[in-house]
Amino acid sequence: MSETLLSGETRSEHDLIGDLDIPVEAYWGVHTLRAKNNFNITENTLAGNPHLIRALARVKQAAARANHDLGLLDADRARAIDQACESIAQGSLHDQFILDPIQGGAGTSTNMNANEVIANLALEIMGHNKGEYQYLHPNDHVNLSQSTNDAYPTAVNIATHFATQPLLAAMQVLEDSCNAKAKEFRTVVKMGRTQLQDAVPMTVGQEFRGWAVTLGEDRARLAESLSLVTEINLGATAIGTGLNAPAGYAAAACAHLRELTGLPLTTSPDLIEATSDVGAFVHLSGVLKRVALKISKICNDLRLLSSGPRAGLNDIQLPAVQSGSSIMPGKVNPVIPEVVNQIAYQVVGHDLTVTMAAEGGQLQLNAFEPVIVHSIGLSLKHLTNGCLTLAEKCIDGITVDEQALRREVENSIGLVTALNPRLGYAASTSVALEALHTGRGVAELVLERGLLSAQDLNELLSPERLANLSD
Amino acid sequence: MSETLLSGETRSEHDLIGDLDIPVEAYWGVHTLRAKNNFNITENTLAGNPHLIRALARVKQAAARANHDLGLLDADRARAIDQACESIAQGSLHDQFILDPIQGGAGTSTNMNANEVIANLALEIMGHNKGEYQYLHPNDHVNLSQSTNDAYPTAVNIATHFATQPLLAAMQVLEDSCNAKAKEFRTVVKMGRTQLQDAVPMTVGQEFRGWAVTLGEDRARLAESLSLVTEINLGATAIGTGLNAPAGYAAAACAHLRELTGLPLTTSPDLIEATSDVGAFVHLSGVLKRVALKISKICNDLRLLSSGPRAGLNDIQLPAVQSGSSIMPGKVNPVIPEVVNQIAYQVVGHDLTVTMAAEGGQLQLNAFEPVIVHSIGLSLKHLTNGCLTLAEKCIDGITVDEQALRREVENSIGLVTALNPRLGYAASTSVALEALHTGRGVAELVLERGLLSAQDLNELLSPERLANLSD
Amino acid sequence: MSETLLSGETRSEHDLIGDLDIPVEAYWGVHTLRAKNNFNITENTLAGNPHLIRALARVKQAAARANHDLGLLDADRARAIDQACESIAQGSLHDQFILDPIQGGAGTSTNMNANEVIANLALEIMGHNKGEYQYLHPNDHVNLSQSTNDAYPTAVNIATHFATQPLLAAMQVLEDSCNAKAKEFRTVVKMGRTQLQDAVPMTVGQEFRGWAVTLGEDRARLAESLSLVTEINLGATAIGTGLNAPAGYAAAACAHLRELTGLPLTTSPDLIEATSDVGAFVHLSGVLKRVALKISKICNDLRLLSSGPRAGLNDIQLPAVQSGSSIMPGKVNPVIPEVVNQIAYQVVGHDLTVTMAAEGGQLQLNAFEPVIVHSIGLSLKHLTNGCLTLAEKCIDGITVDEQALRREVENSIGLVTALNPRLGYAASTSVALEALHTGRGVAELVLERGLLSAQDLNELLSPERLANLSD
Amino acid sequence: MSETLLSGETRSEHDLIGDLDIPVEAYWGVHTLRAKNNFNITENTLAGNPHLIRALARVKQAAARANHDLGLLDADRARAIDQACESIAQGSLHDQFILDPIQGGAGTSTNMNANEVIANLALEIMGHNKGEYQYLHPNDHVNLSQSTNDAYPTAVNIATHFATQPLLAAMQVLEDSCNAKAKEFRTVVKMGRTQLQDAVPMTVGQEFRGWAVTLGEDRARLAESLSLVTEINLGATAIGTGLNAPAGYAAAACAHLRELTGLPLTTSPDLIEATSDVGAFVHLSGVLKRVALKISKICNDLRLLSSGPRAGLNDIQLPAVQSGSSIMPGKVNPVIPEVVNQIAYQVVGHDLTVTMAAEGGQLQLNAFEPVIVHSIGLSLKHLTNGCLTLAEKCIDGITVDEQALRREVENSIGLVTALNPRLGYAASTSVALEALHTGRGVAELVLERGLLSAQDLNELLSPERLANLSD
Repeated sequence: MSETLLSGETRSEHDLIGDLDIPVEAYWGVHTLRAKNNFNITENTLAGNPHLIRALARVKQAAARANHDLGLLDADRARAIDQACESIAQGSLHDQFILDPIQGGAGTSTNMNANEVIANLALEIMGHNKGEYQYLHPNDHVNLSQSTNDAYPTAVNIATHFATQPLLAAMQVLEDSCNAKAKEFRTVVKMGRTQLQDAVPMTVGQEFRGWAVTLGEDRARLAESLSLVTEINLGATAIGTGLNAPAGYAAAACAHLRELTGLPLTTSPDLIEATSDVGAFVHLSGVLKRVALKISKICNDLRLLSSGPRAGLNDIQLPAVQSGSSIMPGKVNPVIPEVVNQIAYQVVGHDLTVTMAAEGGQLQLNAFEPVIVHSIGLSLKHLTNGCLTLAEKCIDGITVDEQALRREVENSIGLVTALNPRLGYAASTSVALEALHTGRGVAELVLERGLLSAQDLNELLSPERLANLSD
Repeated sequence: MSETLLSGETRSEHDLIGDLDIPVEAYWGVHTLRAKNNFNITENTLAGNPHLIRALARVKQAAARANHDLGLLDADRARAIDQACESIAQGSLHDQFILDPIQGGAGTSTNMNANEVIANLALEIMGHNKGEYQYLHPNDHVNLSQSTNDAYPTAVNIATHFATQPLLAAMQVLEDSCNAKAKEFRTVVKMGRTQLQDAVPMTVGQEFRGWAVTLGEDRARLAESLSLVTEINLGATAIGTGLNAPAGYAAAACAHLRELTGLPLTTSPDLIEATSDVGAFVHLSGVLKRVALKISKICNDLRLLSSGPRAGLNDIQLPAVQSGSSIMPGKVNPVIPEVVNQIAYQVVGHDLTVTMAAEGGQLQLNAFEPVIVHSIGLSLKHLTNGCLTLAEKCIDGITVDEQALRREVENSIGLVTALNPRLGYAASTSVALEALHTGRGVAELVLERGLLSAQDLNELLSPERLANLSD
Repeated sequence: MSETLLSGETRSEHDLIGDLDIPVEAYWGVHTLRAKNNFNITENTLAGNPHLIRALARVKQAAARANHDLGLLDADRARAIDQACESIAQGSLHDQFILDPIQGGAGTSTNMNANEVIANLALEIMGHNKGEYQYLHPNDHVNLSQSTNDAYPTAVNIATHFATQPLLAAMQVLEDSCNAKAKEFRTVVKMGRTQLQDAVPMTVGQEFRGWAVTLGEDRARLAESLSLVTEINLGATAIGTGLNAPAGYAAAACAHLRELTGLPLTTSPDLIEATSDVGAFVHLSGVLKRVALKISKICNDLRLLSSGPRAGLNDIQLPAVQSGSSIMPGKVNPVIPEVVNQIAYQVVGHDLTVTMAAEGGQLQLNAFEPVIVHSIGLSLKHLTNGCLTLAEKCIDGITVDEQALRREVENSIGLVTALNPRLGYAASTSVALEALHTGRGVAELVLERGLLSAQDLNELLSPERLANLSD
Repeated sequence: MSETLLSGETRSEHDLIGDLDIPVEAYWGVHTLRAKNNFNITENTLAGNPHLIRALARVKQAAARANHDLGLLDADRARAIDQACESIAQGSLHDQFILDPIQGGAGTSTNMNANEVIANLALEIMGHNKGEYQYLHPNDHVNLSQSTNDAYPTAVNIATHFATQPLLAAMQVLEDSCNAKAKEFRTVVKMGRTQLQDAVPMTVGQEFRGWAVTLGEDRARLAESLSLVTEINLGATAIGTGLNAPAGYAAAACAHLRELTGLPLTTSPDLIEATSDVGAFVHLSGVLKRVALKISKICNDLRLLSSGPRAGLNDIQLPAVQSGSSIMPGKVNPVIPEVVNQIAYQVVGHDLTVTMAAEGGQLQLNAFEPVIVHSIGLSLKHLTNGCLTLAEKCIDGITVDEQALRREVENSIGLVTALNPRLGYAASTSVALEALHTGRGVAELVLERGLLSAQDLNELLSPERLANLSD
């Protein structure tokens, strides 16, 4: 809300506590203003979470349709609310959602912000002025048959579903990048390492393929977890007993919401449980943590494998995207994996916030859903940006020096494990010991001792054999 | 190992570092003793995790059968190894697994402990003495076609599957207890509360039913997550390339292991990825955290609802299982929910340990699997004990005072929400205000004003209506 | 940066990667723009952390003075840089700090953003155009004798010191509020509770006093922890060896910085250690977590003590700051403690992010300091806002019903513990049992049985005696 | 308790719930047995924490002396209790502390276990039989003037103080090991690395010295934090009001306890706050987390620096303490740093358990102190073992190849940063570019181009100059 653009004119609104002056231009009302004054924590507003605003509009739209179906809401008001919600769902008036996302009240203020904005827009659609609630009331009509405790969690579920889609797509982009590199480096042989010690040969392609596979698995887990948020509690009202919602309302509202969102929503079989439970978010946050850990591990590997250029592993070269140092000329750093690592650490932190908020829920409601929603929203957004950044600014530009990697393998001692079946254990061990003591390479010694011909060695070191490539 | 029972006689064994004297009675050998000397952290031993020992025996048994099938292991040795493994899987020699569960080396020492115990038992079965490895060798025969990096994770997966079964059963017991109380208290009306403030009426049965439902959901999630651990990497050998394992080995070993364990095991489609990835454990640990949070929330509610007996909520009475105070006579405390809360906090802590260990994995292996296994093992065991304790020592003995709860509802102000549809908003509000100012109950005022007859009120306050009981 | 306000004219700047067009109005340059394009994660910019921008300006100012002292920087350039830094430290050009706070590169981009903005402002002060780096160069002059790896951590330390001051003040406000209530309710007797069970009497004043004391302790711990951030590594350059910084530079720069900031800064005795270590931030974050836990506990207690109004503890009444429900008329919720709980959960989450970032530091530098700085910055800001909100919108308006609390005590069974020394154990127990079985109060029974006179009872129940008030 | 050693004879004891048969040999009684039956979670017992048992004995001893001083306890009983406590503090009867350390009841059961064992031992000292509580009673005499809520936390504080001493000593051992290596490798030049990229030269000694310094800092922080646990709440009784403790008792008991323990104990100025607060443990646990993170970072560095032996950094060589692989002959792994990393991850997990338990405290007491004590106890023990293991089995045996490290520096490109002041920026850059494109070393090119003589180069690469060694 840019104060300087306001006319200075106000209307008066009333609540339990008393009267408040509301700017005439404002679509929000007294409940929103109280909350605006109460919660000044983060300097952010709900407008930063458009998925949530759109989802709230859809919930109110579905409720209005169900209320009309059941004869609780007349056609005029139902039509005005419907149109107002459609407009907000399309992107209008998001700047009217002025509240801090971190708020007390279990989402009541966010719900009332939505009720007030929708009511005032609907009033205008009906030809009335904002604030003339005698014609259409935020509580009596927009919130009809609802409580914050069912309308808000339902909107949160829907918002989460939609906010997860960009992450799934970004993970696919990252997976595709890894697979493209897996194909490009399919026959480039390198040393595999366990516990940071040289182990046995493999191909660079296998390493990238492993990352692609792990990302694909996580994408599957993430997609699965969304089934938990398609179960909604709309119709539960205050505590899940459905008090003051008419018979048939829950089913009707769910049907309308399914149609409006295109999501396979169902009404929870136990609304008492559904109203107090935040298990779906704990689960989703846990899966996001898993995704973050996997991506962090990939970034750790990328930084490790590109260490050097001389006094490091130097298996791969990351593309230079900016100068690396304000003092060391020519230094290029792995800044993209580094930023993605930090995103991962944030996601792990957010998961703990969700954990604590979940544990703190009491009796018939979890009052801390706002911070859960906020934390998961940040994790989704940052991970999405991180996956795209990692794919486009790092993975896609990675190069390798095939000859140098081959020399590394030939020079390694771990190579004897691969020659063992052909040379026998005794000869292998003898070669390994000489390599260790002289600093020379296993391949060189094997040729010198005449244990294998150059052609034999070549065959044994072929990518096909070493990396067990079957096709 | 009880030192005082040893004869003092030793045999000499050899490894890379040199010779070591091993007690002649010991089934373990030089590799185990090195590790025993290296890792003295927790004062616990692997014997505390019988699921893992049994699973290791099954893996070695399956490997021996596959090696025999493929002609790599002769019938005599295969038979002796098979028999030794069977014996250990049945419970023998667990005291020979003497290593600290927290160890470096990515499980190598645990794997070698198994290889050595099995080899020496097999030697005795063949009529040889312990330590006569020229007849049957821990590495060359027991560990044939394997690496720690596939044998150990495969055993860990199987152990985890079996260790989860008691928890699933205990959760079912707890769920059943909640359902039994839900039935017992089906028609007992009480006040529901949101944000710790009196909200609207519900039944005690609904509250217990909600807990049962939430436990059932978690049981489903936990059972689902086990599908992740039935994918094994046996045949991967050191880094997933299958180096030194013969063609057909992975499939044969997996088939034998399926038969030996009765689990629907499959070989991972990408063994490189499978060998470095611990995502299944991150996932499982995340689900255990979710379970812990739900149970902790139930315990928080139990403690809150039983607060009092005078200056508290006092909705329910927990059974007294011990005296509550060393100074206040007659005080009885909610000690059972309290201990279960603490288990939950441990599980959340273990999940963080798993998180950090997972993030720390590098390149082709995660070296920190031992602490992951240990942490998940503790979580499984403590949660199992906690669920059973909570069911048997607390939930099953809970009682309520139906009359007192009814008075609480009648005396509440939240009751007006329920009377609203019948009295109208104006009358409801007037009654609520008088109740608030005079301290009198809503029910009393409604009768006094003649707004409802006693019979009408009774009907409106019937459990059927209040709690929306449909049957 | 509002693109629409730009003229569209550009200047060309060059780095290792090539040329880039920079808007002529921009004070930032090519390094900043590269980083702007590389890091698009959070939708926030460094401008959200004015403490950091001011601290960077002070570091650059101190460095310029030290460089001039040592003859490395001529008077004209030194004066221009000094003046530019002063201006930024006073609040100018913060909108030119356009980078995402979450970035790779260990702060290099933030450092270069500062170097470029300062250089261009200094150029204008000298009468040149922005971008004419031949006269004054971001690296050669503004960054002279520095590396990101010492300039950035030093700025971060200073910024943290200043950002902690508002929190210390806010904690003092909250402590004062608690102390004021402790005084107001000094003689109001209530039941004390352990494990949520009625224990023995105390005063409401004692409860508030306990919160004040705990906040005071935490304020002391927080203030103490700041001593860790007054140790700086300026002069370390790239890795702590001081390479390319002249003899005497570290001491001179530190002296100037002490003067410019008014902080008791000292140069770390081991610059190698100081350059890679983030222990001070781990420590500070740990203390912030402790503060958060204490405040969360207070909020939990506030919500618990104000539960009701009928079916709860109802020991205290929180001020109503907004309507509590969109469906239940008259319901007022503890929204202020609820929002503060959520802040606490965020702080605990941020601490875990800091933990993971700290553990991930490698060799001579921790590359993840940006996320550490960002997380601690959020914790400081949110806790500050939370403390003030809690004091002003909740604690200050709390009321109690002294008579109701007195009745609660007289009606309790725990009261017998207080009467025990006067009545003897046998009589006490007999009264307790009768109270328990009949539901009557202990005070009433004691009077009825003639065990005490009303006056005696009054005396025993006096706040002075019960609460052990000594003055 | 080994059931097989019991005679089968029992004595009967009574509590609120009824009668129980206690083995005649048992020093514990009915309260302990109830708790033994209630809490079966971890398979561990209090005997695993001898520091706690000794501290409990000292608290009871001090209380008995103070009670005797104040005339509440006769000389015979006081003497018998004193003697019993002394005996337990010296190590007797620890096997009688049979309870699970994870228990509900805020430590009541542990306190009663102590009261019963002390009472029965004191009875025997007085010439009575165990169970003849008419002569000396666990509650009336051993627990006189105490509550669990002050006796237990006081014992916990003392136990924590003593349990931290071995860790401080072990950290000193590790610090000494690092300092010894710092001295040994003082003049060995190597490449320093930031963000895993080659940066500028330093000495190996500097790297070890940095670790020593960081450990020293942490030791100081840990020692400081102990001052928080020397503040005790003995005399608070149930909730801090001191109800039923006579005037002068707190001071007398504290004085005796100071003398008995040798610790500078003081009575908390606000006993209400002290009785519910666990801030000292949150703080201590936070410091232990910091210690763990530092040690984990050192282990990460050790593993990274010893990576190879061919395809890694290979800056240092760790001593071989066991064979590294069950499949790859000759492979030696960094198993000691790996086990210490895992300890660190556990400590971080335990800190989260402490965090959650601290947040869960309610009103006048934190019921979850047992899990806090248990978690911190494990962290202390494991870190102590980890530091000693790391020092003795790893750091002390580290070797380097000075020539190889020198070649690495000469071959590096980062070397130009060091030559820059002598060669000028233009020549430096030209050399760097040729080095990068040809793969040749900077030192070699500089000599070839005649830019420096071999002697000049040697001087510039001297450890004194590179590492800025001042003495």
